[in-house]
Amino acid sequence: MAPSLALDGGSDDYRLTPPPPPVTGRFPSVYSQVQNTRIFHALPLPSVLKTPFNIVDVPQSSAAGSPDEIAKLFPNLFGQPSAMLVPSGSDTVQYDQKLKIGVVLSGGQAPGGHNVISGIFDYLQDRAKGSTLYGFRGGPAGIMKCKYVELTSDYIYPYRNQGGFDMIRSGRDKIETPEQFKQAEESVNKLDLDGLVVIGGDDSNTNACLLAEYFRSKNVKTHVIGCPKTIDGDLKCKEVPTSFGFDTACKIYAEMIGNVMTDARSTGKYYHFVRLMGRAASHITLECALQTHPNITIIGEEVAAKKLTLKNVTDYIVDIISKRAEANYNYGVILIPEGLIDFIPEVQHLISELNEILAHDTVDEGGLWKKKLADQSLKLFELLPRTIQEQLLLERDPHGNVQVAKIETEKMFIQMVEAELEKREQEGTYKGGFKGQSHFFGYEGRCGLPTNFDSTYCYALGYGAGALLQSGKTGLISSVGNLGAPVEEWTVGGTALTSLMDVERRHGKFKPVIKKAMVELEEAPFKKFASLRDEWALTNCYISPGPIQFTGPGSDAISHTLLLELGVQA
Amino acid sequence: MAPSLALDGGSDDYRLTPPPPPVTGRFPSVYSQVQNTRIFHALPLPSVLKTPFNIVDVPQSSAAGSPDEIAKLFPNLFGQPSAMLVPSGSDTVQYDQKLKIGVVLSGGQAPGGHNVISGIFDYLQDRAKGSTLYGFRGGPAGIMKCKYVELTSDYIYPYRNQGGFDMIRSGRDKIETPEQFKQAEESVNKLDLDGLVVIGGDDSNTNACLLAEYFRSKNVKTHVIGCPKTIDGDLKCKEVPTSFGFDTACKIYAEMIGNVMTDARSTGKYYHFVRLMGRAASHITLECALQTHPNITIIGEEVAAKKLTLKNVTDYIVDIISKRAEANYNYGVILIPEGLIDFIPEVQHLISELNEILAHDTVDEGGLWKKKLADQSLKLFELLPRTIQEQLLLERDPHGNVQVAKIETEKMFIQMVEAELEKREQEGTYKGGFKGQSHFFGYEGRCGLPTNFDSTYCYALGYGAGALLQSGKTGLISSVGNLGAPVEEWTVGGTALTSLMDVERRHGKFKPVIKKAMVELEEAPFKKFASLRDEWALTNCYISPGPIQFTGPGSDAISHTLLLELGVQA
Repeated sequence: MAPSLALDGGSDDYRLTPPPPPVTGRFPSVYSQVQNTRIFHALPLPSVLKTPFNIVDVPQSSAAGSPDEIAKLFPNLFGQPSAMLVPSGSDTVQYDQKLKIGVVLSGGQAPGGHNVISGIFDYLQDRAKGSTLYGFRGGPAGIMKCKYVELTSDYIYPYRNQGGFDMIRSGRDKIETPEQFKQAEESVNKLDLDGLVVIGGDDSNTNACLLAEYFRSKNVKTHVIGCPKTIDGDLKCKEVPTSFGFDTACKIYAEMIGNVMTDARSTGKYYHFVRLMGRAASHITLECALQTHPNITIIGEEVAAKKLTLKNVTDYIVDIISKRAEANYNYGVILIPEGLIDFIPEVQHLISELNEILAHDTVDEGGLWKKKLADQSLKLFELLPRTIQEQLLLERDPHGNVQVAKIETEKMFIQMVEAELEKREQEGTYKGGFKGQSHFFGYEGRCGLPTNFDSTYCYALGYGAGALLQSGKTGLISSVGNLGAPVEEWTVGGTALTSLMDVERRHGKFKPVIKKAMVELEEAPFKKFASLRDEWALTNCYISPGPIQFTGPGSDAISHTLLLELGVQA
Repeated sequence: MAPSLALDGGSDDYRLTPPPPPVTGRFPSVYSQVQNTRIFHALPLPSVLKTPFNIVDVPQSSAAGSPDEIAKLFPNLFGQPSAMLVPSGSDTVQYDQKLKIGVVLSGGQAPGGHNVISGIFDYLQDRAKGSTLYGFRGGPAGIMKCKYVELTSDYIYPYRNQGGFDMIRSGRDKIETPEQFKQAEESVNKLDLDGLVVIGGDDSNTNACLLAEYFRSKNVKTHVIGCPKTIDGDLKCKEVPTSFGFDTACKIYAEMIGNVMTDARSTGKYYHFVRLMGRAASHITLECALQTHPNITIIGEEVAAKKLTLKNVTDYIVDIISKRAEANYNYGVILIPEGLIDFIPEVQHLISELNEILAHDTVDEGGLWKKKLADQSLKLFELLPRTIQEQLLLERDPHGNVQVAKIETEKMFIQMVEAELEKREQEGTYKGGFKGQSHFFGYEGRCGLPTNFDSTYCYALGYGAGALLQSGKTGLISSVGNLGAPVEEWTVGGTALTSLMDVERRHGKFKPVIKKAMVELEEAPFKKFASLRDEWALTNCYISPGPIQFTGPGSDAISHTLLLELGVQA
């Protein structure tokens, strides 16, 4: 086996080209059989992308909020219409126009990113022969440093339908300062780019729009198109029904949850506390609940809306565990979103008080420092398990701040539930056996092989982005809709990024933001969950989704969240 | 949706019967589409089971060791031949003989257990119409308490090709005392059993043989047949090439490892330390390494053979991390078997000294108690990260013993590697960035939907067990061989359990044991791994197996360990 190539000073690591099919199990391959098979999985395209098309304007609401501020921030782009591809009788798109396009991956990985890139590439091959596609490496920093690679057919081939962002890697930098915008300008000028596709989440798409505005203001010819990426599922709106990666990540987590459920039912003696990735919004946790029917699911947005305390949440869990014990069910499965702690106001208070105290005082063994805490914070601190208390005091980031992200919420709840159950046992209000097992499902889901849905959706997003750029569009986010219908009927277009924006005041300045789409308590996914959760709590309606299948029944299923939001599923 | 039924005082929880196929995504099902599809997956049988067969004797070595002691312990069974099914010209098996058979699941879950039971059931339906199958509930305790359920076609139906042991649940009790053997005798007499199938690991199969011997000595007509179950893969020999569940569990873990590898390569900044289930032997870790090609893999048996210390293992890891840093690879994936600590003699010494000290002394804050530790143990204790030290001192089991099982080895290594890297950085011998991420893959793998291999293998094991019982065999373990060939050519028979046994001296008495099959450093799987690991360490040959597929390419693949042991793969 040849060694992997360490290009560019060895800091990157590209895939070797796998052998051509068919590959038997005995061939010493760098790819597994499933990976190999997926490379050659043919992707359907929406009908509108298979024939000549025109691009028509779609009137768009001015902004998601604060239109006057958005208008000031985007004088060149504000108010522009969105775009929709429609079949045309004749081929009105210029087939001999050669384009130079750049693409960048921004932020955390999500399954399907490689397919967006191959979608752009194939569009250029099909509709603008002789075009060039550059991949900026390592995220937006690659734009600023003009670190890029030319993406050829051979280069892209081993990444088709594969998970990960390793084709060109990603990064978390943002293009923010005037100098950075200038650097970006120099890079796109140097490469003579007609267009740039930014694949990222809410912040990255905001950044894409700022870049589009900047280029237009500077008369730079480069147009900018965004693509909605995040496993968290919190970048979506009417025109962009889902972000890619959400489908695959949720199915991977749901497979594991289903397995753990079967285990719980088989042994009858463990409560599995499963923390799921997703810091800002609880979409992943909600989707996994709809797929698997756990006994208890905590949704951060509901905790926040009801202003629940940590004690409230613990009691909610303990009440169900007690009731289950009465039915002799001393086991169960509990889902907790990674970001739960951020939804509990009293925890936020405690943490900011701790940061203040730790910055100025030493923590004495005797505990005199605790007197500096407000009453409510002290009460909460005393409620926390010892290990969590220590974690809060000891493990701090380079700025000296408490590291909330490091708190293993699932373990914290196991300990708090244990303490509360012991108390109730002594009071005679609970009798049962409780053993907690903790799990965190996170990194496993970000780079899995994309599902058929994510593979096809991403390919259409990329192909559509190519069409938008060829049509001279800028400041739009690639939008593929009608996802409840067969792929042929999916709609393709672009939504004005400014129409998704509002402003936030940060450090005395207005900043444009695409508002994160949180779990809405009045919308179908949460309402369906809320209508069923009491039944799931006391009886066991576990569903085991099993491993993602790429062929056969269920292989083209889309997420419950999307089905419910589209009104396809009741 | 109807609630699940809580039978028998509510302590058990059976599956609802899923709706008949085809089930669309919109049908409110208790089963996922994949679960549903799997119920109707048709299982191939070895040819010999599809036609009339004879059972022929196969001469068998007397015992794995200490034949004289085994002969004394099993006066009735010792020396009996093994059995092999061969096609017969005419149907020599009595088709009208009705049998009463019991079955029990013993020990931890493994994917495929339900298929062993459906294999027995179908055998009785096909070849001994009018027979009855009872499932003893909750493991061997169910035999002793005569807690059982009659397994009918309807009862078994929803569990076909499904993961878990929830059809009749399992338990970890053993039948050991004379009273317990008496209870078992009463139960099988009460049910008038012709046979009993014990599905379990090494201990459970030893127990099955003791039960067979006891029944024969008491002239009880019940015959006993064992079946090889354990995800750990440590119950195997020439005649029993693998235990069921190993294939599925390893593929589930390998899917997750492959995803984490793609993540590591995509971000380029994390070292993922993955602890894998498997306390006694490191087969799971070795198999996952062969499937995925991690940068570093620790095999417990090698650590023990080389008498490595914790410091040696840490240095081995750190050396590779340092070399990778020179190539600008500041990321990687490291596999660690759950039972690693048990393979390190110095850790065992430390723990027994701690148990001794903690039983008699108090641990003073000043640390005077440490003077009671032997020099080497003290040195080791001081090497351990603070959190692990605390865990050793504070978290003890009801007998006051240190809980080795609770040590999160993967986190321990992250901290020890961090400390060593810091040291080397100060010495100027290392320059790089190190961030550890910890994972434990365990419960997710015990109850997954069985792979095609485990589904088919288990069904044949059960079907074969039926044949052995109908032929009047006892004290055998169901043995299905020639697994590298197409299913039609698989061999079916039973191996004399006494031939697998040796004795161990426990509390001054000889106890029969089936010796656990450990990773052998001179055999093909380890040798292949050892020949490739240096390349895997410094280059990145990651393979992502992807999710288990039930149809299409790769869906019938069997484990590398098995292929290598069978000599099918080089």
